[in-house]
Amino acid sequence: MTKERLYLFDTTLRDGAQTQGVQFSAEEKHRIAEILDGLGIDYIEGGWPGANPTDTTFFAEPPKTRATFTAFGMTKRSGRSAENDDVLAAVMNAGTPAVCLVGKAHDFHVTKALGIELAENTANLHASFAHIAASGREGLFDAEHFFDGYKSNPDYALEAIHAAYQAGARWIVLCDTNGGTLPDEVATIVTAVIASGIPGDHVAIHTHNDTENAVAGSLAAVLAGARQIQGTLNGLGERCGNANLTTIIPTLLLKEPYASRFQTGVTPEALKGLRKASRMLDDILNRVPAKQAAYVGASAFAHKSGLHASAIAKDPTTYEHVDPAAIGNSRIVPMSNQAGQSNLKARLADMGIAVEVGDPALPRIIERVKAREAQGYTYDGAQASFEILARDELGILPRFFEVKRYRVTVERRKNKRNQMVSISEAVVVTKVGGKKFLTVSESQGPDGSDQGPVNALSRALAKDLGPYQQIIDDMRLVDFKVRITNGGTEAVTRVIIDSEDGQGRRWSTVGVSANIVDASFDALVDAINWKLIRDGAET
Amino acid sequence: MTKERLYLFDTTLRDGAQTQGVQFSAEEKHRIAEILDGLGIDYIEGGWPGANPTDTTFFAEPPKTRATFTAFGMTKRSGRSAENDDVLAAVMNAGTPAVCLVGKAHDFHVTKALGIELAENTANLHASFAHIAASGREGLFDAEHFFDGYKSNPDYALEAIHAAYQAGARWIVLCDTNGGTLPDEVATIVTAVIASGIPGDHVAIHTHNDTENAVAGSLAAVLAGARQIQGTLNGLGERCGNANLTTIIPTLLLKEPYASRFQTGVTPEALKGLRKASRMLDDILNRVPAKQAAYVGASAFAHKSGLHASAIAKDPTTYEHVDPAAIGNSRIVPMSNQAGQSNLKARLADMGIAVEVGDPALPRIIERVKAREAQGYTYDGAQASFEILARDELGILPRFFEVKRYRVTVERRKNKRNQMVSISEAVVVTKVGGKKFLTVSESQGPDGSDQGPVNALSRALAKDLGPYQQIIDDMRLVDFKVRITNGGTEAVTRVIIDSEDGQGRRWSTVGVSANIVDASFDALVDAINWKLIRDGAET
Repeated sequence: MTKERLYLFDTTLRDGAQTQGVQFSAEEKHRIAEILDGLGIDYIEGGWPGANPTDTTFFAEPPKTRATFTAFGMTKRSGRSAENDDVLAAVMNAGTPAVCLVGKAHDFHVTKALGIELAENTANLHASFAHIAASGREGLFDAEHFFDGYKSNPDYALEAIHAAYQAGARWIVLCDTNGGTLPDEVATIVTAVIASGIPGDHVAIHTHNDTENAVAGSLAAVLAGARQIQGTLNGLGERCGNANLTTIIPTLLLKEPYASRFQTGVTPEALKGLRKASRMLDDILNRVPAKQAAYVGASAFAHKSGLHASAIAKDPTTYEHVDPAAIGNSRIVPMSNQAGQSNLKARLADMGIAVEVGDPALPRIIERVKAREAQGYTYDGAQASFEILARDELGILPRFFEVKRYRVTVERRKNKRNQMVSISEAVVVTKVGGKKFLTVSESQGPDGSDQGPVNALSRALAKDLGPYQQIIDDMRLVDFKVRITNGGTEAVTRVIIDSEDGQGRRWSTVGVSANIVDASFDALVDAINWKLIRDGAET
Repeated sequence: MTKERLYLFDTTLRDGAQTQGVQFSAEEKHRIAEILDGLGIDYIEGGWPGANPTDTTFFAEPPKTRATFTAFGMTKRSGRSAENDDVLAAVMNAGTPAVCLVGKAHDFHVTKALGIELAENTANLHASFAHIAASGREGLFDAEHFFDGYKSNPDYALEAIHAAYQAGARWIVLCDTNGGTLPDEVATIVTAVIASGIPGDHVAIHTHNDTENAVAGSLAAVLAGARQIQGTLNGLGERCGNANLTTIIPTLLLKEPYASRFQTGVTPEALKGLRKASRMLDDILNRVPAKQAAYVGASAFAHKSGLHASAIAKDPTTYEHVDPAAIGNSRIVPMSNQAGQSNLKARLADMGIAVEVGDPALPRIIERVKAREAQGYTYDGAQASFEILARDELGILPRFFEVKRYRVTVERRKNKRNQMVSISEAVVVTKVGGKKFLTVSESQGPDGSDQGPVNALSRALAKDLGPYQQIIDDMRLVDFKVRITNGGTEAVTRVIIDSEDGQGRRWSTVGVSANIVDASFDALVDAINWKLIRDGAET
């Protein structure tokens, strides 16, 4: 059976930019477009040319995508022709192969928000899409509030979309703008639209997650005949977000009836990059990845229950509906049982450490990880600290240097120009091969400004490590994450530090203490030790 | 038309405890049970008596709930009678009015995982539920992997649930244990179950969110005839979580066809406490609340687009599918437009500050908030700092004290017993009414241990504020949140401090700086100023 083509339209760069707290730069838009193109999305909507300086910059030098690059705008206003509407002209002038225009399909919005007659709105829609068709571009009609409009006045909602379709719009995008339409209603109304004469392969679905049904609504629309899904990566979007393509894509490729019936532009190979794509977007936004995200979350294949984990060890299908590797994700089983020991052995092998199952160090490592996690540590995101812990238990942790003491001072006072300034300063005393090294450093950011106690400590520590100095010279601290968490009964501070070196290696270490400076210092020391081990430093 | 009764079963304390990173104490379970009971949930599943020390403690002194308190366990094992199964006995001995037992309904799991004949499993199910019925309790059969089982062997899946039903189980809980069943399949299979002779008002649905369809699957089951929904608050649960009752409850009460057809135990008044209930659970778990959560998220009614916000100002139904007040949530509109100004005026009025629209301070406040937010500040969660900023622009911020300088030191070294210890110490110089106060403090936690530089600063600052000392004596720092964020081009640290006083008031302040100590200090100073304003201190 030939599969039907189902198209994916991404609006992360347009509707996703409406997320509270999200503000993309043009450069970030380029990076995200590249991620989307790598996945195999069919259409990438870049924003609204002319609406704001970022979008204007972005469209002036658009990304070169295999996907159909799309500009967003609105249908022509009343009182001028499509050719003479300057807002529409700014959109058309971006020269994209596809243009998506939002317009009204809900009678209430036409008469109240626009304050025009229904027939006039219909004429505006027709003129706008005829204009796009005449320019040889692909037109998409973003029919705002379509579902609410259909419930209020089905005849007018259909009249509006038929006007756009007859004028040459390639796609009629049925938008559930307020996110309040439930999946069953979506199915009923999409069916009615197709019955009214707009073929399903010209119908797109655009849902929002206000009732946590955006994915379900999109799937319901496809079963009812729609052949384009609009959504965003990680479900970004205004209010509760848009339909989450990061969830919809694996469902379409891995689950029935979709996998057998439909073909998308995403290959099984590209699907393996989905988890990474999701994380890259979080990185760009400096967001904490949602652990429980479907398919791609760090917890999505985490089996905490002992009964589940032992069944998984026999056969993963007992508690997994799909193979985590298909989306580039991996299984997490509690280390405390049998499955955990094989898992630990594999994890150590990845680090180049060969240990046999049965080695008494394995249960000791597991116990120590559990005890540390109870104190507030986490080793999921701090592999380098995990390696150091494991090497210590296995008796293969080299002792390069010892920190005898440190002192860090932060002082805020007025300078001679009567401005309040802060100065952070750290003194570190280390012992390397019987020799004592005393170093001092002020804090200094890239622009010479004070960056606080951790920066000062990091600089002092890296200033003179005697024979190891040359090895750590190309190390730099690239990220620093702080979380207040519970260690036993007390709140403690967990610090995760990401470091990088001249060879492009990147590693993460963790420190925990009630004192944030101590926690940071421990993570810094782990980071240096890991680098020395990797570069084969001798003790 | 009389409404049909639809029951809500909460498993936050049992399945929710399987969430990666979640570990409830018995005391926390009591607090959560109280939240659930306040909402009007019908059944509260408390855990598995006998399975672990926490649950055993919890069931030894169970919460007194209006809801039917339920113990979880598993059906009797082969080779012993229901009366003589010690695991089942521990569950029964908890003496709860309802007992929910998990058992197999999927042929593959019976023969592979249990390694017994299908008929023997059927007999075990029958004996277990007959035992519960004989004890006069309400029995629920948690039919594990029911949907996968039905797809694999529908006859056996139905045989298993009919055995439990005929033995007296009040509810047959159809579990989609692996979370892979899509809503349409749920509808089809629930319909088949009811057609097989188990009335819908004895059928419960239990879904997981592995395809982001747990809510949709639950609603599909209700439309197909099921009359009990199982889920958790905030969608806690193993892997991607369980069906999110925080979303399902408002959908059932506010959206059609559910609102007209069904009656739950949740009153419209209790629904107004939903947002708060969701936040309380996050507080207990020390989790960052999901901003985009349906209905209850901080962003759920945030209108970022200017076009949307101005329409909202005319009529909120233009871009809202329900009234945020119905779930105790509120609307957020960008302050930079007209709707924003009325919003700002209302926000100030809540703080007891009367300002007329048109006051030139209003746009100045908005500009300053925007400039600060670009630097990394956030005022959503730091109302007290917002009030101080607004008072400053309005010229009504009292100047109680001035900080001339401070210095904080963290030292780590060996003590005389050769242990590494840390000592944090802060010196603060303030000026109050022309008089200088110099104070010094070590850091000291509740147990006397070092808690780092911010604690030391907070203690030094609160040690002597001259005439204001008495007012701030009942203040204490209750939470401290740190986030690395972007301020312009540089990474900066944002600190949010929650303070509390003897009158039970709680307020939040924010500080931002590349130096974490400076950021914390600024938040501390805001916190003290707010307290002095609230208590009517004189300058």
